[in-house]
Amino acid sequence: MNITIIGLGLIGGSLALDLKKTRFATKITGVETSKENADEALKLGIADEILELGPALKNADLVILAIPVDKILELLPEVLGKIPENATVTDVGSAKRKIAEAVKNHPRRKNYVPAHPMSGTEYSGPSAALPDLFKGKITIICDQNDCGPQHLALAEKMFHLIGMDIAYMTSDEQDLSTAFVSHLPHAAAYALANAVQSKENRNIIFDLASGGFRSTVRLAKSSSSMWHPIFQQNNDYVVEALEVYIKHLESFRDAIKNGNSDELLGLIENATKIRSILDGENHSLIKNEETNVKLYTK
Amino acid sequence: MNITIIGLGLIGGSLALDLKKTRFATKITGVETSKENADEALKLGIADEILELGPALKNADLVILAIPVDKILELLPEVLGKIPENATVTDVGSAKRKIAEAVKNHPRRKNYVPAHPMSGTEYSGPSAALPDLFKGKITIICDQNDCGPQHLALAEKMFHLIGMDIAYMTSDEQDLSTAFVSHLPHAAAYALANAVQSKENRNIIFDLASGGFRSTVRLAKSSSSMWHPIFQQNNDYVVEALEVYIKHLESFRDAIKNGNSDELLGLIENATKIRSILDGENHSLIKNEETNVKLYTK
Repeated sequence: MNITIIGLGLIGGSLALDLKKTRFATKITGVETSKENADEALKLGIADEILELGPALKNADLVILAIPVDKILELLPEVLGKIPENATVTDVGSAKRKIAEAVKNHPRRKNYVPAHPMSGTEYSGPSAALPDLFKGKITIICDQNDCGPQHLALAEKMFHLIGMDIAYMTSDEQDLSTAFVSHLPHAAAYALANAVQSKENRNIIFDLASGGFRSTVRLAKSSSSMWHPIFQQNNDYVVEALEVYIKHLESFRDAIKNGNSDELLGLIENATKIRSILDGENHSLIKNEETNVKLYTK
Repeated sequence: MNITIIGLGLIGGSLALDLKKTRFATKITGVETSKENADEALKLGIADEILELGPALKNADLVILAIPVDKILELLPEVLGKIPENATVTDVGSAKRKIAEAVKNHPRRKNYVPAHPMSGTEYSGPSAALPDLFKGKITIICDQNDCGPQHLALAEKMFHLIGMDIAYMTSDEQDLSTAFVSHLPHAAAYALANAVQSKENRNIIFDLASGGFRSTVRLAKSSSSMWHPIFQQNNDYVVEALEVYIKHLESFRDAIKNGNSDELLGLIENATKIRSILDGENHSLIKNEETNVKLYTK
């Protein structure tokens, strides 16, 4: 199968490595606007060839958009317009409502399977690509009833082959959930990095930064070209998540400020319950009847 | 040398493992109020014997208090009163001003070397003890001019033997710096865990929690018995750090809410500068003339 990947960074490059290894792809064609990334991707064997968009779509069976969400929004209608009639298009964007809205009435809407594979690192570019990056992780597929069944099946098959389970939800549910579980932690880490850098001598931070500090601000190393448009596309839910977070920080601050020892202890003990979530081993939605979200495991 | 460790949890237990391995300790006597921890520590070979406080101090050359900071505050004057005349006492508490204040006029003040080895994990108890936990990390020694030179030398020798560099600062400087670099990240993680748990179905968090979420809230798994008293003892500086953090979160929220794209990009790009601090390899204070803090490397 001919697979065209638009954007050969961390996510596009890692997908390429897995899709070659599993032989799901017989040929990987890359589209990459950065000359440096294009050269690096060829050198690393991530893509077999790099072409301009038009020629890269001409013989594609499957097209994956692995570029920042503002670029997906811009390019997706054009990509749908240029693919062969039966080709499938999917993407990896972390925000989905605006993209779904942009192609709602596109004549090839059924060819598109909106996806969000939830895996990554804080690094970027083709050299950050890793084999098995997606193994054991979840991909969200949105608005599956708007996808043609063959296109949905092909995208599902690909995500299963690279080791992922699939959660189905609407674009709206995905944007709300990821606002809390992914976008908020990134905003929290960026603001923490800014707060500490605004107050402390960089040399002191450098020397005193223990493992705890490092893990909490790790996400602040994430690429601005990826995250800036995510916060903008998912602005209302991210603002909501930040409001909730600020409220909880204020409760924490007030409990300390007012010497309210019992309340402070209650807040800490409630927080530590996250342990049972984080230390669990198996996906739980499959056993769960409380939510609309359905899980499809390998 | 006979070393008595009061508290055989993560930090006390890890110290015991290293002090035995380096043969700095010929015998390790433990003091442990939890029967379960005491049994476990003996079984794991962390301590050679467990005694009551009085008998445990009687023949000690070096005493280490590795208990929560409220317990250090309570016990330190009594420990100083009961040790042999030439014995050295040190501790591992993460807040220092209140403890320094409590023993300021103690007749044995010179025997005490206030220390804060900056290493740990989010787990607790003797079974969480790890060899080499402190290797390559920094320990802060406070108010070194108030320590007797022999006592200071012995504590320094011990921290160097287990692989640590030493930063010297006043109790006040340590409480301010750790408020930003350690206490704030813990408060941020606890509040983030509370925020997400307040809004999201636990099953959804569980399934969608990617590596990014996990690392950002990891510290929220930390023991409340250790952290509750730290926030209380360092209350003014922790409140100050939380105020600064909330202000930076509000700027982030407002930039998103108001669609101020350039300002949002600026905030993200400033935050990503933390990379150069986090990805550095060597301690920097030794080359630094801007701060009072001095570093003593192995």
